[in-house]
Amino acid sequence: MSVLVVGSVAYDGIETPRGKVDRVLGGAGSHIALAASHFTNVRLVAVVGDDFAPADEEVLRRRNIDLEGLERAPGKTFFWQGVYSESMNERRTLVTDLNVFADFQPRLPESYRDTPLILLGNIQPSLQATVVDQATNRGFVAGDTMNYWIERTPDELARTIRSWDAILINDEEARQLSGETDLRASAAAIQAMGPTSVVIKRGEYGAALFHGDDCFLVPAHPLTTLVDPTGAGDAFAGGFMGWLDRCGIDRSSHPEQWQSQLRRAVVYGSIMGSFCCEQFGVDGLRNLTLERIDARYEEFQALLAY
Amino acid sequence: MSVLVVGSVAYDGIETPRGKVDRVLGGAGSHIALAASHFTNVRLVAVVGDDFAPADEEVLRRRNIDLEGLERAPGKTFFWQGVYSESMNERRTLVTDLNVFADFQPRLPESYRDTPLILLGNIQPSLQATVVDQATNRGFVAGDTMNYWIERTPDELARTIRSWDAILINDEEARQLSGETDLRASAAAIQAMGPTSVVIKRGEYGAALFHGDDCFLVPAHPLTTLVDPTGAGDAFAGGFMGWLDRCGIDRSSHPEQWQSQLRRAVVYGSIMGSFCCEQFGVDGLRNLTLERIDARYEEFQALLAY
Repeated sequence: MSVLVVGSVAYDGIETPRGKVDRVLGGAGSHIALAASHFTNVRLVAVVGDDFAPADEEVLRRRNIDLEGLERAPGKTFFWQGVYSESMNERRTLVTDLNVFADFQPRLPESYRDTPLILLGNIQPSLQATVVDQATNRGFVAGDTMNYWIERTPDELARTIRSWDAILINDEEARQLSGETDLRASAAAIQAMGPTSVVIKRGEYGAALFHGDDCFLVPAHPLTTLVDPTGAGDAFAGGFMGWLDRCGIDRSSHPEQWQSQLRRAVVYGSIMGSFCCEQFGVDGLRNLTLERIDARYEEFQALLAY
Repeated sequence: MSVLVVGSVAYDGIETPRGKVDRVLGGAGSHIALAASHFTNVRLVAVVGDDFAPADEEVLRRRNIDLEGLERAPGKTFFWQGVYSESMNERRTLVTDLNVFADFQPRLPESYRDTPLILLGNIQPSLQATVVDQATNRGFVAGDTMNYWIERTPDELARTIRSWDAILINDEEARQLSGETDLRASAAAIQAMGPTSVVIKRGEYGAALFHGDDCFLVPAHPLTTLVDPTGAGDAFAGGFMGWLDRCGIDRSSHPEQWQSQLRRAVVYGSIMGSFCCEQFGVDGLRNLTLERIDARYEEFQALLAY
């Protein structure tokens, strides 16, 4: 099976208390695709400029990510630059140059259209909707969004997420989107907007899954060295969706097994988020092996058992 | 078996977004003792003034808490008043009248001295030390502290915790005490100060246990209605210590079983913290039954299984 991923492919300039890097491969699409690629085949829809380096394309290609949907447009690749606080719980954006991403119109190559699992990275809600419209074999649609769209295009966002099966957002966004402060109440309010499954990413505190009436909580892996949190939420989404595709459960015919795989998907999401944070940019995701992922899964089980 | 508890017995005035109460029974000693009383026998060492109402004493007595160590001094009972923010993640203290608590010198009645499990609520470190000095059958000593003592009496605090088996503190205090921001690093630094077991309470995000090289994480129970967080950390400590006494494992002869009971104790601590938050003051703890506690334990297991 395959997962269709849409999201930004960017260059990032990142400064954290652990160091500084300039123009490294980044963007939600890259992090999602690389994380998911450890579990399944990934088809990426994104846009880059003519400055996009062959070496960076090679990073994606080496993970067998299908790049037929990676459009090249005249101009520069999306560039983001930010600096993290001492605790890395806050970050300040210094530069956001959308460049070719400003006019991005996601187009699915013919070969992508029948992909049943679709993961919509955080882009404009109306563009997320056009991706789903182009798909011909819609199985399970999950998406991310952010405060920018919640504040500026609330109606467009509401229309878009109405058809999603799952939404993956952080706790601040969940509060903003729902208008509720309590975790359970905000998840219930978001479920009422459409998605049956609401995954709330809580950073260093883990994640929560609300699926119908079911609730599942998982703490974050306690990292020994947090180097760079950039893209951790996207790596989470990639691990989550990659696992769901890999486990291959038919959710309509096996709802209980699906529910338990959703929980596992949240654990794999957490694990991919933890690997992401251990190195700058996508370095924590690109050279991983399934053996290391499974070892951390077991380590995780040992951390949580009682 | 029994647990010896030392800590404040106070009157609290509390305002949260869910309501307001005045002069309700509170204090670390009350919350700890009531939480622990659901698991084992509790012997309380504390001081109250001559305004302490028989009805409030009755609340403790009805839970079979031994009050031989509850000293009555001329003057008023410790009074605290505070108001919580909308999210209840922050609170502002309006009044702290130490009253009779200012001159508190914990004295163990003869019948308390052989209690093997000792839980030291958050009082001045040198007073915590005198409690341990008076004990004749010291088995397992756990204690709490706070930023006030970390800042003002660091040397006295260091001398006191050196002999503790476990310390239970919140994440902010753990960072302050250790000088480390990372959870694991701060736990390791605190272990190096003495306690083999470090329990870090993370409020709405749960708790972490570091025992030797072992690490255990548990999320908080997702409450449907958070009414008043006052005393939740103390209720946690009471549940933790109460369970350890109830399970009755000899930690030197059965270190592995002890380790797994420590994990369970953290879960029971979380559960008692969640009950505490659901009502004002000690109301969430006083009328509980072991059946409801066990039901929540099972509910908790279902929330965490994958």
